[in-house]
Amino acid sequence: MLNKFSVKYRVYYEDTDAGGIVYHANYLRFCERARTELLRYLKISQFDLVQKEKVIFVVKRCEIDYIAPAKLDDLIEVTAEVTKISATSFVMHQEVQRDQQILSTMETVIVCVDSETYRPKKIPQNIKDLFNV
Amino acid sequence: MLNKFSVKYRVYYEDTDAGGIVYHANYLRFCERARTELLRYLKISQFDLVQKEKVIFVVKRCEIDYIAPAKLDDLIEVTAEVTKISATSFVMHQEVQRDQQILSTMETVIVCVDSETYRPKKIPQNIKDLFNV
Amino acid sequence: MLNKFSVKYRVYYEDTDAGGIVYHANYLRFCERARTELLRYLKISQFDLVQKEKVIFVVKRCEIDYIAPAKLDDLIEVTAEVTKISATSFVMHQEVQRDQQILSTMETVIVCVDSETYRPKKIPQNIKDLFNV
Amino acid sequence: MLNKFSVKYRVYYEDTDAGGIVYHANYLRFCERARTELLRYLKISQFDLVQKEKVIFVVKRCEIDYIAPAKLDDLIEVTAEVTKISATSFVMHQEVQRDQQILSTMETVIVCVDSETYRPKKIPQNIKDLFNV
Repeated sequence: MLNKFSVKYRVYYEDTDAGGIVYHANYLRFCERARTELLRYLKISQFDLVQKEKVIFVVKRCEIDYIAPAKLDDLIEVTAEVTKISATSFVMHQEVQRDQQILSTMETVIVCVDSETYRPKKIPQNIKDLFNV
Repeated sequence: MLNKFSVKYRVYYEDTDAGGIVYHANYLRFCERARTELLRYLKISQFDLVQKEKVIFVVKRCEIDYIAPAKLDDLIEVTAEVTKISATSFVMHQEVQRDQQILSTMETVIVCVDSETYRPKKIPQNIKDLFNV
Repeated sequence: MLNKFSVKYRVYYEDTDAGGIVYHANYLRFCERARTELLRYLKISQFDLVQKEKVIFVVKRCEIDYIAPAKLDDLIEVTAEVTKISATSFVMHQEVQRDQQILSTMETVIVCVDSETYRPKKIPQNIKDLFNV
Repeated sequence: MLNKFSVKYRVYYEDTDAGGIVYHANYLRFCERARTELLRYLKISQFDLVQKEKVIFVVKRCEIDYIAPAKLDDLIEVTAEVTKISATSFVMHQEVQRDQQILSTMETVIVCVDSETYRPKKIPQNIKDLFNV
């Protein structure tokens, strides 16, 4: 069972700001890409989840530490690891790295909610089974 | 009848890139904000348009000229003027200015489409009546 | 001495995602806008800080709780309050509200760093004097 | 000599808006990524260009046609082809495709400018030599 996973992204102009480094909010975008790719790797389509199961995964809480800045042209690696899972939510630990140096760490609480009411809903069992934590 | 309109926005870090100026794609965001505010000023809610009329306005074509760069902390003024209108589309001329200097101009073709099929649909008459071009 | 402050922003299409609500990373953009406006209100220009004092304020850590989603066309109010201050950093508490309902809360640790080396540097005294915490 | 080039990108939540499709300004981000990757493929670093040659490539003009919308989870292919080149500028034709269907086309005029004054400057000869148009 896969709990850890990583993808690589290039830092483009769009990701940076006038400070010359990656804009702080964009680390959340990078981490969300990695979570999406983890789901895709596990053959879970967020689009199907909305259409068929009427559920959507939303971020409930996020703790980010910024350790060193990513810069234009950097090739960053973003990890995604499920560290806890409950009936309606799971916790992920993620890191943004460059050449194995940790630039940022993130703890995210993801909740499974109804795609219309946004109320918590049980995580579909087939998804829960994929994680062993 | 109102054909011209403008709103002011501050340039924040999020709008800039490592080149030290506003990232080129963000001028489209500024212009879309001004178009939205024009609709709001005319008491047209895009949210209601989707919910009640099942139409959405989408950008079909865009021509942008970048004349001078906007920078961090700039207070920019974004104009929105309807210059042509047809059964299913309209053309807007917009300018991004700073202290009356034109930084960018944009010609945008907006099409009224069905919010589900994305096929062209007649512009609701009450909206058409608001413009006299 | 001012420790609390708020600004209002409209939610535009650019802020939302296919889930129909504001994309989670964009709350950090809203909060950064409010922090910038707080500095501006206090006559502190981030541009001047870089040019003259060679310092830049960077986000070191961020904790965000998402309570209820902001949606297209919402008028949100973003607060910014300095709750702690040390030699090189300060802590801010921020809230994103809609009609006095809290949609999101954020605790941010901001560090004053050298604009070239990104090493911590003392907060300029004239800025420190503005806060009484 | 290479004049055409393409890269693939996944459409993430960050790229979409409440209309359920890719936000129109984000096609410019996708196209800029492809232009950057073309430069990288040709061993041209934009970071080095700024540091060593004091030049930066800026978008002067952009014409975009939106033909069909890209959606969440789409795998899009973005092409980049230099179609004209002069002393200080070049023209690129780009397409955003999905399964060989053209979703958007873009004509962009890129100008080589001084990284501090933003005045047009000759394109470095080693870069010019890479294109045969």
